[in-house]
Amino acid sequence: MQLVTFEHNGSAKPGVIVGDKIIGLQAAGFSTLLHLIQGGSEALQRIKTWVDNPPKDEIVPLANARILAPLSNPPKIICVGLNYRDHALECNEQIPKLPTLFSKYTTSIIGPGEAIVLPKDSKEPDYEAELAVVIGKGGRYISKNRWRDHVFGYTNLNDVSARDYQAATSQWMVGKTFDTFAPMGPAIVTADEIADPQALDIQMIINGETLQSSNTSQMVFGIPELIEYISSIFTLEPGDVISTGTPGGVGEAKTPPRWLRPGDDVVVRISGIPELHSGVRAE
Amino acid sequence: MQLVTFEHNGSAKPGVIVGDKIIGLQAAGFSTLLHLIQGGSEALQRIKTWVDNPPKDEIVPLANARILAPLSNPPKIICVGLNYRDHALECNEQIPKLPTLFSKYTTSIIGPGEAIVLPKDSKEPDYEAELAVVIGKGGRYISKNRWRDHVFGYTNLNDVSARDYQAATSQWMVGKTFDTFAPMGPAIVTADEIADPQALDIQMIINGETLQSSNTSQMVFGIPELIEYISSIFTLEPGDVISTGTPGGVGEAKTPPRWLRPGDDVVVRISGIPELHSGVRAE
Repeated sequence: MQLVTFEHNGSAKPGVIVGDKIIGLQAAGFSTLLHLIQGGSEALQRIKTWVDNPPKDEIVPLANARILAPLSNPPKIICVGLNYRDHALECNEQIPKLPTLFSKYTTSIIGPGEAIVLPKDSKEPDYEAELAVVIGKGGRYISKNRWRDHVFGYTNLNDVSARDYQAATSQWMVGKTFDTFAPMGPAIVTADEIADPQALDIQMIINGETLQSSNTSQMVFGIPELIEYISSIFTLEPGDVISTGTPGGVGEAKTPPRWLRPGDDVVVRISGIPELHSGVRAE
Repeated sequence: MQLVTFEHNGSAKPGVIVGDKIIGLQAAGFSTLLHLIQGGSEALQRIKTWVDNPPKDEIVPLANARILAPLSNPPKIICVGLNYRDHALECNEQIPKLPTLFSKYTTSIIGPGEAIVLPKDSKEPDYEAELAVVIGKGGRYISKNRWRDHVFGYTNLNDVSARDYQAATSQWMVGKTFDTFAPMGPAIVTADEIADPQALDIQMIINGETLQSSNTSQMVFGIPELIEYISSIFTLEPGDVISTGTPGGVGEAKTPPRWLRPGDDVVVRISGIPELHSGVRAE
């Protein structure tokens, strides 16, 4: 299933995309997607039944709805740095022996079609196409062999990064967590529809030009290893988002650098997940 | 006022400490302290009136209540690194020209009297006494001259840090956000009761021995500057916690290093705020 949060008649609701329609899930007992994810496999089973036979007044034409970010308030956004071999090398970094983790705050999340706002004092705003894993069942000390039990689904995330702010101190977070710096969505594709998340083509396309093009097979630490490592540090919770790092081809590694510019049409494309489009504007 | 979250008859509620009693605030219309903070000055005025004349069945003897962390789910925990001159020097770092920011996840929060759990694979668990500022009115681009309009109150935070994990990659967060690594509380003291938050004695006392002893006047970036800088990056929200950094005297700077040990009795003491006590145990 492709799960979304959509605005219809002035309020935000969870729904499932079926063809050119959205089936609303609020009347099935879920106020938000996070609420649904927290409900576990029982909740997922309930909406499968619901979607097979939806009440007529829960069916909304896609054209009449505005898709928002699937999660506006995930408990955590966990980002993994330098997690594709070619990106680590283009940053003149060693292939890491441990995952490098940092965070974004939820205030950085925007939905599909919204604009990334370029901070007025940054001269180096950059893009990073990433596969984001949405955690279903939480836990601590999750073995990598049990990773599938804990993944609810997958979505796109653009780990927008102001490189000058990122490098201004030793800690990257400020450059990564400006408002609007986490475009996410449009849909969370449930885990059953992605047979192998380590075999997905991933691309960043700006104004029709492909700037990043790789495959999730190129990750240094795969999703099982990331879940094992992260949950050895802290408790994973339902709805946590793990953004698994970006491949080579970021703007700062181009000659000359290719920074984000007002008016850019930015697309994250990952096999099996609907594309994420974002605009770009000056502050 | 000293605002707390307390457990009584099996549920968590907001309250105000008055002498040896807590006056519950749930019947005044607030389900949590975060909810109260989001209510702004009007909410604060309402509870002042409530506390002056509380219903009898809202008065609970302190001895019958368990104090929890004041906020279990703040929108953000924003930590400032190297923000006291003597601590930057003991870390062999320059006095920073910009605030260094990183984060902890809410899963690291524990309340007063709870135990810090030492990760089984860390050999260097350390303490950091810090003054935490709780944001009231949110905003972006807050001028440092307007900082008082945005501060709800103050509390203690121990920025517990596994130094080996903190130094294992370039990003400190993993060493800072193990479960239990953010003891907080016991009370949020409202801003009106702390005339000058840059003139508070701050101490870390373990097993009766004073290991850190300084004054918030020694911060490199004061609270007005931090609020201005942070809100130039992202939107501050009601309930956000800014932990303003630790003074000199951390365990890793002692000779020999003084790491946290099972059984330690850990106290953060800041003038004008009730002390924060934590235990320590092995995982």
